[in-house]
Amino acid sequence: MTSLNTQVRVRKRAQGVPTADCFTITQAPRPDAPPGGVMARTLLAAVDPAMRGWLSTERNYITVPDGAVMKAHGIGEVIESDHPDYAPGDLVYGWTGWQTWAAMTADEVMWKIDAAAAPPEAWLGPLGINGLTAWVGFRHLAQPKAGETVLVSTAAGGVGGVVGQLARDGGQRAVGLTSTDDKVETCIADYGFDEAISYRRDDLADAIARACPGGIDIFYDNTAGAIADAVFPHLNTHARVIQCGTASIADWTAAPSGPRRERNMLVKRLTWRGFVFTDHAETFPQALDELKGLYARGRLRLREDILDGLESAPGALQRLYSGANTGRLLIRV
Amino acid sequence: MTSLNTQVRVRKRAQGVPTADCFTITQAPRPDAPPGGVMARTLLAAVDPAMRGWLSTERNYITVPDGAVMKAHGIGEVIESDHPDYAPGDLVYGWTGWQTWAAMTADEVMWKIDAAAAPPEAWLGPLGINGLTAWVGFRHLAQPKAGETVLVSTAAGGVGGVVGQLARDGGQRAVGLTSTDDKVETCIADYGFDEAISYRRDDLADAIARACPGGIDIFYDNTAGAIADAVFPHLNTHARVIQCGTASIADWTAAPSGPRRERNMLVKRLTWRGFVFTDHAETFPQALDELKGLYARGRLRLREDILDGLESAPGALQRLYSGANTGRLLIRV
Repeated sequence: MTSLNTQVRVRKRAQGVPTADCFTITQAPRPDAPPGGVMARTLLAAVDPAMRGWLSTERNYITVPDGAVMKAHGIGEVIESDHPDYAPGDLVYGWTGWQTWAAMTADEVMWKIDAAAAPPEAWLGPLGINGLTAWVGFRHLAQPKAGETVLVSTAAGGVGGVVGQLARDGGQRAVGLTSTDDKVETCIADYGFDEAISYRRDDLADAIARACPGGIDIFYDNTAGAIADAVFPHLNTHARVIQCGTASIADWTAAPSGPRRERNMLVKRLTWRGFVFTDHAETFPQALDELKGLYARGRLRLREDILDGLESAPGALQRLYSGANTGRLLIRV
Repeated sequence: MTSLNTQVRVRKRAQGVPTADCFTITQAPRPDAPPGGVMARTLLAAVDPAMRGWLSTERNYITVPDGAVMKAHGIGEVIESDHPDYAPGDLVYGWTGWQTWAAMTADEVMWKIDAAAAPPEAWLGPLGINGLTAWVGFRHLAQPKAGETVLVSTAAGGVGGVVGQLARDGGQRAVGLTSTDDKVETCIADYGFDEAISYRRDDLADAIARACPGGIDIFYDNTAGAIADAVFPHLNTHARVIQCGTASIADWTAAPSGPRRERNMLVKRLTWRGFVFTDHAETFPQALDELKGLYARGRLRLREDILDGLESAPGALQRLYSGANTGRLLIRV
């Protein structure tokens, strides 16, 4: 086992989707466990759409400054521990970052994972950040009722795929928007969607209307932009819009414009909420209970697209935003 | 007392603010009380910003069709009653419409007013639709906490003026946006605002920043459009936007565009709600208790601008949207 710590660091800010040259790979000595924390060997690290915002020059809820190791959720095997709850050999889920060895404070370790219940990749996906994000936005904030229709953008993605399966389990009609015909199939075959539509078609608004004959009660939006514009006219009175991401607009520094929503908001009495799942940590135990139960029953799955080695990390966000990945994008460290 | 019923009827749809020629005045015989309802003599009838939407060709939550008597809240004196709760001589608040004699079903009568507690004009304003709208949007939906900052657009209007006084009573810092220097004075002197700003100044965004040094926690928006655009950058994380009206944009048939809000919604974790106060009727008893208590303590006042006679009704919406009125616009029938 190497004693060197390979680390992917931020080299410069990104306008839009970070390119490989926004990062640099450096070597450092293997760290010790910090006081009260653990030192873990990173097994898997996540590549998340939200990372685009972390490298933006715009105000964001998380920023990774130039020179810092790229933040990322990951699964690590504890090597050294200065925390009573974690012992060498435990597998933990937390903020490992894109690096071989992660010195994590107690706050940065989220919880131990149970590798007998599900493999590490599941704990980074449907039982990790994806599952919690989907659960908080859909179950907790949108409060879906049986028989309602939910429309999900980027439905074949790591979060959208869980929303579809939560909707199937909760008795909602789920309609997914995604990029390719292959992903349309995945949405329906694997992720519990009743219908799925490629948003690359010209008649998107018509296709949405046909797939949602009773209108839309919940719009779980990961894209914003023109895709959202096609959805808003089909929202029902008292519909809820959950803003989970803004993937279709690469750059907000130029303040893009679009149709005004104020009259929709008023006349349809909409509720539109932006959220970041970490603001709702008090719901995680309930969320994980439900997600683990679904997983155990074989009702929660998510494809993974696993890249090999940290050298693939700098280009990973370009891959994610191009739509080339099929399923949850991860890096095997 | 005339036995003729003078009625202001909708003659045609309006593009934007209804002009006088959108209405026609007709005469009809005095009606009888409908089964289970009352027949009342209208004393005062309201002129409300929402009426613009009722005459629009666009989808709206209320539509008054061509040929129908214009809907309006009003105060009526019961002349005949077929309802056990109402007796001749009672004053009631309800959907009188713009007409001399109102045949109202039980559903159209909202409640008896107590003329000893407050004069009829107060029951159409701070203790009526204005007060309930302000209370539902601010107290019930925005859930203000002591020490928070609320910014109100059209702060000198019938709803905005009540929000300012509710904020003063609840320990919030209230900042008002209004049109003229006179109204700025009214906001501060009469309506409980800590500061008020004319939105006609060139440096509106800077003025908002100075008046809200800690940012804005609640935006109670009656205007939409460019005024809202100046407000959004100053919203705090977890701020609530309450869409009560869209007064600054006269015509939504052409789908106006503006800066996209999606990134704001997400990064600041905003909650944006459109509402119509009648959707929240279960809160009215609690709302009226609080509003009557404030009124009794002299802490809830609203200026009235009372037009004489139904012949002034057709031009009243133009007056309202021009900003020429000072205070709650009513018609003495």
